[in-house]
Amino acid sequence: MNKKFWSSRIQSLVPYTPGEQPKDRVFIKLNTNENPYPPSPKVLQAIQEAAGDALRLYPDPEAQSLRGALAEYYGLTPEQIFCGNGSDEVLGLCFYALFSPGRTVVFPDITYSFYPVYTELFGLDYQQIPLNEDFSLPVEKLLGGNGGVVVCNPNAPTGQALPLAEIRRILEANREVPVLVDEAYAEFGAQSAVPLIEEFPNLVVVRTMSKDRSLAGMRVGYALGNAGLIAGINCVKNSFNSYPLDRLALAAGEAAIRDKEYFEETREKIMQTREKTTKALRELGFLVHDSSANFIFARHPEKSGKELQQGLRDRGILVRRFDKPERIQDHLRISIGTASDMEALCQVCAELVRD
Amino acid sequence: MNKKFWSSRIQSLVPYTPGEQPKDRVFIKLNTNENPYPPSPKVLQAIQEAAGDALRLYPDPEAQSLRGALAEYYGLTPEQIFCGNGSDEVLGLCFYALFSPGRTVVFPDITYSFYPVYTELFGLDYQQIPLNEDFSLPVEKLLGGNGGVVVCNPNAPTGQALPLAEIRRILEANREVPVLVDEAYAEFGAQSAVPLIEEFPNLVVVRTMSKDRSLAGMRVGYALGNAGLIAGINCVKNSFNSYPLDRLALAAGEAAIRDKEYFEETREKIMQTREKTTKALRELGFLVHDSSANFIFARHPEKSGKELQQGLRDRGILVRRFDKPERIQDHLRISIGTASDMEALCQVCAELVRD
Repeated sequence: MNKKFWSSRIQSLVPYTPGEQPKDRVFIKLNTNENPYPPSPKVLQAIQEAAGDALRLYPDPEAQSLRGALAEYYGLTPEQIFCGNGSDEVLGLCFYALFSPGRTVVFPDITYSFYPVYTELFGLDYQQIPLNEDFSLPVEKLLGGNGGVVVCNPNAPTGQALPLAEIRRILEANREVPVLVDEAYAEFGAQSAVPLIEEFPNLVVVRTMSKDRSLAGMRVGYALGNAGLIAGINCVKNSFNSYPLDRLALAAGEAAIRDKEYFEETREKIMQTREKTTKALRELGFLVHDSSANFIFARHPEKSGKELQQGLRDRGILVRRFDKPERIQDHLRISIGTASDMEALCQVCAELVRD
Repeated sequence: MNKKFWSSRIQSLVPYTPGEQPKDRVFIKLNTNENPYPPSPKVLQAIQEAAGDALRLYPDPEAQSLRGALAEYYGLTPEQIFCGNGSDEVLGLCFYALFSPGRTVVFPDITYSFYPVYTELFGLDYQQIPLNEDFSLPVEKLLGGNGGVVVCNPNAPTGQALPLAEIRRILEANREVPVLVDEAYAEFGAQSAVPLIEEFPNLVVVRTMSKDRSLAGMRVGYALGNAGLIAGINCVKNSFNSYPLDRLALAAGEAAIRDKEYFEETREKIMQTREKTTKALRELGFLVHDSSANFIFARHPEKSGKELQQGLRDRGILVRRFDKPERIQDHLRISIGTASDMEALCQVCAELVRD
């Protein structure tokens, strides 16, 4: 790899590796937490309406219509909302806009693995706080003396949620620094921190339409927070890329957030399937953590994670596994698919543990 | 503006201001260089085919199919191609990936005004080289002793193109640093630097589908260059946002680049309209620079640019004008619209100069 023309800043940079997106074979795909149900029919209709001659025109750089719809949904004002090209971009812009060089950002050692990639990319100091043995968050270690806090709630890949009272503790102890709560999965069972926005100007909540609105393919993410803080994210975005959301993503996102009924239906199905699958895997001897997300985190005491993952893959099912840290390498993160997807998963798991 | 929670890095940041995107009124819109013709019918068809249940799935993070189509079009390999969320994002990623703190980047004082915004955002040293009186580029001032060169060809907002021999001079004198050639407008009459990619591993060419493929609404931009250099841009992208292009942008971009016939037709119309409009405005006493882009740069010796711009706006026509540097504040940058758009423009201009 000839890095001769690479910036000095990125010579040692190790990027994030997303889950496999297979092209050659058809798999039951339970590895990147995509929603198993299609987007709302209203989304497809909105896209159709927007997909015409107007595509020659730039989209609204301020995503005003989408922000208006999100404001209505969340009971906020549009100034408290930022929209970006998927929550990965929104998170990246937040890290750049809100955290400062030399001011250590703290987050757990087991969490969304993109956070330390952003900090490395942007030359930010960070400290990874080890989760407790049971994967719960040692909240007492996040109470002050840092340059910012990032908490994923529910956490990835554990699926564990923090009660709102604990989020409040963190906010109260960190009033002088930004506290970012990543709620990518929160609609599946966590208490949202959004109601705390009025009270805590240092709070920013980041969400995405990739999981709960079946729009992973359209890249729509957003941040919710105090208007002054949101303006900082906007300042960075306007210094990098004026138009992060194309016309069709704006149309799709707005239609999705407005179709509350469809979302509640699909969410309900996913949560029920999650509970059934948790029970079924436990009956096979798996240790399955209670989950508030659209995936479950599980391991089998007698089988290595690597073996199970490969066995599933051989039989056409993809799940995610993380080699680091070592103590989770035998866990599988299994997205919640359709009921029949999960029946197939359980059947294969039954065979694999029988051997 | 409460900047309390803003990073120390962005406290003094002044973002880029894009051209007006009006919502309240219908204008003849000649201010952001959008293509006046709709995207190819094949683009709309491709979008329709892709806009279904599959939107729940993540797009290809590596944009392989689009890169394959671009590789065929340009006679390059896919490894020599990077795709991003519009060329603004691609440029931003290039600035981060290829330029280093403490190594001065050089570009003209009159050029795409986003370049100094990226350098400010990323804490890069830069030097703006004054263009000659006639807005030509003093190439001799770009020959070595810097940390990187950025040349917009044709230049914005002047529309002036550099001969390929001059690009070669710049490349030869700067072999140890990246040279970025922004060819956003090149398809409208400049000699492309793409044939120099094999010979110069420090060259990166950035292009967009916003102007020449009528896809400003879909955000598709790309970089072309040596594989090692492209890998650096990819490294930054993969550390920031794995999936910059959504499924529909990928489909639209590929269909657009494959419909060469449609592109050549619309381009021909735009170039002819440009020549006609240049002639017509000169007959009204305007000084119109020869242009190799899809806009023209013109001023009237007896009218201030501000007056003309306002007069046009009052009569329903939007054009762009830059207050800085001072020596171009009386110029108008007028996008090439349809033949009837430009007739309307000329009629209004005739009235305005008659007063």
